[in-house]
Amino acid sequence: MQTYIVNSPFDMHIHFRDDNMLKVVAPLSSSTFVGGIIMPNLVPPVSTKQEVIDYKNRIMDAIKGDDFTPFMTLFFKPYTKEFLSDVKDVITAIKLYPAGITTNSEGGVESIDTVALAPTLNAMAELNIPLCVHGETNGFVMDRESEFMSVYEELAIAFPKLTIIMEHITTKDAVDLVQKYDNLYATITLQHLLITLDDVAGGMLAPHLFCKPIAKRPEDRDALVAIALSGNEKIMFGSDSAPHPKHAKEACGCAAGVFTAPIALQVLTQLFETHNSLDNLQKFVSDNACKIYNMKAKEKSVTLVKKDFSIPEYYEGHGEKVVPMYFGQTISWSIEN
Amino acid sequence: MQTYIVNSPFDMHIHFRDDNMLKVVAPLSSSTFVGGIIMPNLVPPVSTKQEVIDYKNRIMDAIKGDDFTPFMTLFFKPYTKEFLSDVKDVITAIKLYPAGITTNSEGGVESIDTVALAPTLNAMAELNIPLCVHGETNGFVMDRESEFMSVYEELAIAFPKLTIIMEHITTKDAVDLVQKYDNLYATITLQHLLITLDDVAGGMLAPHLFCKPIAKRPEDRDALVAIALSGNEKIMFGSDSAPHPKHAKEACGCAAGVFTAPIALQVLTQLFETHNSLDNLQKFVSDNACKIYNMKAKEKSVTLVKKDFSIPEYYEGHGEKVVPMYFGQTISWSIEN
Repeated sequence: MQTYIVNSPFDMHIHFRDDNMLKVVAPLSSSTFVGGIIMPNLVPPVSTKQEVIDYKNRIMDAIKGDDFTPFMTLFFKPYTKEFLSDVKDVITAIKLYPAGITTNSEGGVESIDTVALAPTLNAMAELNIPLCVHGETNGFVMDRESEFMSVYEELAIAFPKLTIIMEHITTKDAVDLVQKYDNLYATITLQHLLITLDDVAGGMLAPHLFCKPIAKRPEDRDALVAIALSGNEKIMFGSDSAPHPKHAKEACGCAAGVFTAPIALQVLTQLFETHNSLDNLQKFVSDNACKIYNMKAKEKSVTLVKKDFSIPEYYEGHGEKVVPMYFGQTISWSIEN
Repeated sequence: MQTYIVNSPFDMHIHFRDDNMLKVVAPLSSSTFVGGIIMPNLVPPVSTKQEVIDYKNRIMDAIKGDDFTPFMTLFFKPYTKEFLSDVKDVITAIKLYPAGITTNSEGGVESIDTVALAPTLNAMAELNIPLCVHGETNGFVMDRESEFMSVYEELAIAFPKLTIIMEHITTKDAVDLVQKYDNLYATITLQHLLITLDDVAGGMLAPHLFCKPIAKRPEDRDALVAIALSGNEKIMFGSDSAPHPKHAKEACGCAAGVFTAPIALQVLTQLFETHNSLDNLQKFVSDNACKIYNMKAKEKSVTLVKKDFSIPEYYEGHGEKVVPMYFGQTISWSIEN
């Protein structure tokens, strides 16, 4: 049987949520991934050292001894250098959300002003704390990311020593821009390598494929697939796996987010194999992240086998039910237990 | 109190459905409109003279004596001239659906070939039977209508004596094209004058605003509003009011269609008033349709009063519940009882 071994896979953009949802979803990442960037958009957002420590402890409880390192993040605010120096040893990055742009981002930045934000961003650059950015304006839904490119450019130019991660990029424009500045990097999700707006709203409406940024045009997806498959060193896998309770996703007015953590490695293997690019999967899911975040991976090898995997209708536990992408479908790669 | 009288309003594109849904929704149109084009996409589609007669009888039963004329349509297929001559007195138009493009359109036309369809379309032109067209390709959801423009052009050129109605247009491209050929006309829905894709998928997902063709970009909506407000003689109101049961709209994988019949005149009055264009509302909802379809309207005056109208959460009856656009919201114009 055909197998493929991934060494130390990272998910560089995950939402673990909190409470019962955390208990359900965290083990579905920690059982396979060796680590990941944990997003801080709880209610209230994670923005003090103690909150980071407490959240990390809750995560460690939830993953029950799995060999998984949660890389903690702070919710971006204007922080002092003193604060950042103090918090540095418990965080890996800081995540900037424009205000109100996605789930629990109401307390985000109203205006990304490179002058006003300079004290914080310069301190981050000095302390080697990367800035992760949700890059969308509040414009027309299909244009929000492309309109944000000028903000990325301003940041990249104004803070050349700051590592800036363009999170969950979805457009050809972002694929082009990330290659233009040395200090820009990007994560790409599973779903944005696979779907377009057609899958969300071209047939029946598909709430379980609805996320922010919304899936874009076929030529955008093609650009994302091309750069991910190429193994380009600026590009990392970040699932943006974003669980919401089943009833909330399927209600009138569903929230944005696609839940992919438990299927991501299998589907990625299938995708890279289909395009004869399995040789580059290791870079996309691990090696590039280690270089960009300047870290050494702990050993954890995951064996994928070419064997049918029937994706469950939902995952459940602790009173929560979460529906994964491609629920009810069968894919051709499984993780060896 | 400010009032505005509409004479003989028509809805030139309605889905009345059948059975219990017909009984619920037909009176919500017939109580105010004087007539309308009834779409034939039942299961199975309306495609024989007897089916037209039977469906019309069911509609007349449902509207219980209201002064409303249902203009019946046939589902487009290659029909002979003999058949069309025979059916002509019971229909007003024939509706062409590309196969599989929307609700119950599986039996539509696989390929719109002006040579293959010439016998039917020439016969329709000779018999003065207008052709109503759902103009979408099976391309990317935001491009489907624009990609169809070349098909409209081919039809307009190949059949210069055929009256061709571009149904529920949603793009600036369609607004431009309808003005280019003498035999092209168009209907515009209520929702496409008001919403963009932002309203469907820019915030939370909004199944009750999900329809086909999907709402497009702001500049598309602006072009639609401009031509509707102008009173342009080629443009008619056609709500495409398309009820689905509440549970089906709010389920995972909801069907396409916005239900607007009971709120359309009130919202249109508010829209035209807001843009200081009330003088042209009569053309949009009645006069233009009479000219395009070469018909004389029966007298039926509807008085709109500037008084708050709280749109219900749903309309119900006969075991059916249907949610209207803008449910739970209040608008500033009501229909005088």
